[in-house]
Amino acid sequence: MELGIVGLGKMGAGMARRLARAGVRVVCYDQSDAAREAIAREKNIECVENLAALCAKLVGERVLLVMLPAGEAVEATIRDLLPLVSSGDTIVDGGNSYYRDSKRRALALSQQGLRYIDAGVSGGVHGEAHGYCLMLGGTPKSIEIFEPFARLLAPGAERGWLHCGPSGAGHFAKMIHNGVEYGMMQALAEGFALIAARPELDIDAARLAETWRHGSVVRSWLLDLCTTILQENETLEGVAPVVADSGEGRWTALESIELGVPAPVITLALMGRFSSQGRSDYARRLLALMRTGFGGHPFTKSG
Amino acid sequence: MELGIVGLGKMGAGMARRLARAGVRVVCYDQSDAAREAIAREKNIECVENLAALCAKLVGERVLLVMLPAGEAVEATIRDLLPLVSSGDTIVDGGNSYYRDSKRRALALSQQGLRYIDAGVSGGVHGEAHGYCLMLGGTPKSIEIFEPFARLLAPGAERGWLHCGPSGAGHFAKMIHNGVEYGMMQALAEGFALIAARPELDIDAARLAETWRHGSVVRSWLLDLCTTILQENETLEGVAPVVADSGEGRWTALESIELGVPAPVITLALMGRFSSQGRSDYARRLLALMRTGFGGHPFTKSG
Repeated sequence: MELGIVGLGKMGAGMARRLARAGVRVVCYDQSDAAREAIAREKNIECVENLAALCAKLVGERVLLVMLPAGEAVEATIRDLLPLVSSGDTIVDGGNSYYRDSKRRALALSQQGLRYIDAGVSGGVHGEAHGYCLMLGGTPKSIEIFEPFARLLAPGAERGWLHCGPSGAGHFAKMIHNGVEYGMMQALAEGFALIAARPELDIDAARLAETWRHGSVVRSWLLDLCTTILQENETLEGVAPVVADSGEGRWTALESIELGVPAPVITLALMGRFSSQGRSDYARRLLALMRTGFGGHPFTKSG
Repeated sequence: MELGIVGLGKMGAGMARRLARAGVRVVCYDQSDAAREAIAREKNIECVENLAALCAKLVGERVLLVMLPAGEAVEATIRDLLPLVSSGDTIVDGGNSYYRDSKRRALALSQQGLRYIDAGVSGGVHGEAHGYCLMLGGTPKSIEIFEPFARLLAPGAERGWLHCGPSGAGHFAKMIHNGVEYGMMQALAEGFALIAARPELDIDAARLAETWRHGSVVRSWLLDLCTTILQENETLEGVAPVVADSGEGRWTALESIELGVPAPVITLALMGRFSSQGRSDYARRLLALMRTGFGGHPFTKSG
């Protein structure tokens, strides 16, 4: 078994290592010398310096796993791969691409005799050890080709990976997964914020989180994460209150609007992230000035 | 070891059985004959027909676990117990009482030489088999008295139960737990609603939920529940879209407002439940008529 991987970020490198440990020959490329060097001397892993070398090192019907940030990086890589691959090869996009881009790419590649899988991957940095949850979209034949790798990447051969449906279904499922994640983590964060705001009750948030892990209705992997975070830094010192967003929350909210199916909590969690990035500041300034305008209330001057 | 339990609903009966199985002598009272009869002949369990008999059957410093709906039922039972108990006895309120009521009750009972524990209990109907998550508020001495029972009720002797803080802290922690639960379950429900709204992607929601259980970031007990629900009834046929609320979500939202600490997602999940109960209908009718008013848009007549 052999597989090419393009992109050796946290996810790509972890997947390369998990497959290599299972005996797969993994040929890797990353544009960063440092990323290649970090993994180059590990067993069953070989690093190459460009996409042409990657394709040259793989024999027969190639399977190429692209682990890059959604958008231009994926688009450019697929464009660059096109002259290097052959009919029957399979390209797997394991990034968080928009499912509509994936549908488009699958169609375009199929017209050149290439197979395309959109693979939603969840599991973060813990996936290397415990396995990744894989949501796959594509034709039955393309999934059949990728299945031996999916069985090794997932937490178990028969669990944690799914052929969700046709092209786009994998990234759609991953998009919804991340939308749900936005809402769930926001709910947990709000709860712990309220606990922190009642110091007179003397509740040790880290111990409470640990307790909730056993037998409670809110037990979850996100709660496990909160437990570790609060054990290490209960006051969250040194961390700015800014939460990034990377696309999938926005797409989930757009989906809700386009379908006319309410997703208020997911959308509000997304809006909360925008606010955390300072994107409510204009509205807030205007609100402050309106209060000054109608009531003479002084506004706070900025520094 | 012996303990009295007042209230043999799903939670009270489950806790009685779990303790009895562990060898505790459990004396139970419930106002319902049927509830008493359902459990009366089980090993280590004895049912009595009133609170006086319950107190008479227990010797030494009594521990009485009250498993009743928050509010008037708890208030009346404590009032009725007062002439029957003795200084040094411990009353444990295992219901979902408002933490401010619990603070008040603890103070009132302490003035009569009685101990009081507010015990937040999570775990639902699965707690009997797997253990309950217990959040306890009260004095160190009262917790010391209850600890042997807590160790048996929890999923493990050393895990899943916590002395959160002084009186009120247990029910406060449970209130926040339930608030978080509102938000987390709303996020999951919204996600599956969006999946159901894209039938063309042919995603089997039950299989996707099962897949997410392994390695994904959203894995959780609530997701486990969704998996079972979707496996049994993917179209949710026969279930009206009405979601009850039982107090703790409201109190969490009030807490957020009183503290001035935002809990937007939890509050919105609560508002969504109100809407599901038809409590948005007045506003929605008025909205429909405003559209008619300014734009001549016809409104839908009610049946």
